[in-house]
Amino acid sequence: MINVNLEKPMQSSSSLDNTRPLLLWQRIIDWAQDHYRERTFLKDQRIPARPGLLYLVQRGVIRLAGVSKETTSKQKLISEEGETFLGFIGSGQPFEIVAQSPYALQAYAHIDDTSVIWLYWQDLDNWPHFRWEILEAFRAQHQRKLIWLSTLGQRQTIDRLLGFITLLVEEHGEPIEQGYYLPFPLTHAQIGSAIGSTRVTVTRLMGKLKQKGMILTVGDNLICLPHSPEPITGSE
Amino acid sequence: MINVNLEKPMQSSSSLDNTRPLLLWQRIIDWAQDHYRERTFLKDQRIPARPGLLYLVQRGVIRLAGVSKETTSKQKLISEEGETFLGFIGSGQPFEIVAQSPYALQAYAHIDDTSVIWLYWQDLDNWPHFRWEILEAFRAQHQRKLIWLSTLGQRQTIDRLLGFITLLVEEHGEPIEQGYYLPFPLTHAQIGSAIGSTRVTVTRLMGKLKQKGMILTVGDNLICLPHSPEPITGSE
Repeated sequence: MINVNLEKPMQSSSSLDNTRPLLLWQRIIDWAQDHYRERTFLKDQRIPARPGLLYLVQRGVIRLAGVSKETTSKQKLISEEGETFLGFIGSGQPFEIVAQSPYALQAYAHIDDTSVIWLYWQDLDNWPHFRWEILEAFRAQHQRKLIWLSTLGQRQTIDRLLGFITLLVEEHGEPIEQGYYLPFPLTHAQIGSAIGSTRVTVTRLMGKLKQKGMILTVGDNLICLPHSPEPITGSE
Repeated sequence: MINVNLEKPMQSSSSLDNTRPLLLWQRIIDWAQDHYRERTFLKDQRIPARPGLLYLVQRGVIRLAGVSKETTSKQKLISEEGETFLGFIGSGQPFEIVAQSPYALQAYAHIDDTSVIWLYWQDLDNWPHFRWEILEAFRAQHQRKLIWLSTLGQRQTIDRLLGFITLLVEEHGEPIEQGYYLPFPLTHAQIGSAIGSTRVTVTRLMGKLKQKGMILTVGDNLICLPHSPEPITGSE
């Protein structure tokens, strides 16, 4: 069972910023700009990221996706299915691109005006403390992905759907009057790709969850988890 | 589509050992033994691991699982489902236990005579290079989990099943005459819990994959990925 009660503080995507000396972060941005290592992207534009480099989201949101690699093998048992949504990387967070058979990662700007800087790992020799923070950030991302995998192991698609939305809102949600909402859009096809389902099924199940009052949409179809209703009887 | 051709070298779970100064690893084991920070477990015994500590597999294999936490909420939309299999941690590799609503991780000895040592993060102040390696190991584990998530986004259960087995054998497989095999057992219920399916369905689909020659079992029902058959016609 899952509890969508979100009254505890959110794990914000900018939590790294709180522990990072802002001056250092500013120095790294300055350095990246001086070395032409910064670029700004439009919504859904692909980041031309390469394995082996380190990327930092300076502004905006990155969407990570897993992509099946082309193969010349005859063993096409597994069908071509486009991309799997693997999560968002918010401002102040690092990401990198892995290429491991048979999948490759790709990164996209999820919203307009998303700005990314890149570094070689050896560039970080100048900033050992920052290198430390980067590795700690990956450690935290890893912990979150284990939690994602926990929710994706559920048998019922509606359970995976609600668990998945809950984790996303925990990670990136912002408070409004009705609850916590995801401040950028996510298509039903993208959700389906993450939870092993289809756009059509996600649309149907989102309708069910709305009917039950488990989720809301606010503004321009943004997903919102409402504050939990008071339990009618407590079992404590 | 996925290519189960595994002729490239396996990413072994002991690959960390190759880069680690063995003397340092031995010193850390000695230190752990001196400080009563080592314990050996039987198959399926739970490791009494706590969040905030760091654990190292000295010998054997650890099985990580995600567990739904008990909740007093009335919102039991998501059914109780036992544990989700989240992967193996092999000898020389670190792991840690996360507790984040609404899931918690648990670790089990997957085979007899699995030995674990534990450290506080501040213990690693004495071995900065080792601390570095630990964080790099988590970074590598994170990359693998993104690949796992890529395969679990596939719609068809049989695709998730074959993708999942392929990744496991890539990570932990050992070569034999017929191909690469997973050198310890994994139940169909455990596989089902990882790919969002049931024991019954996994058993049925494993039968299908065997019929197609995509997988074999060797020895005491151990999973094996056979060497790929030669393509009949090349499309290169």
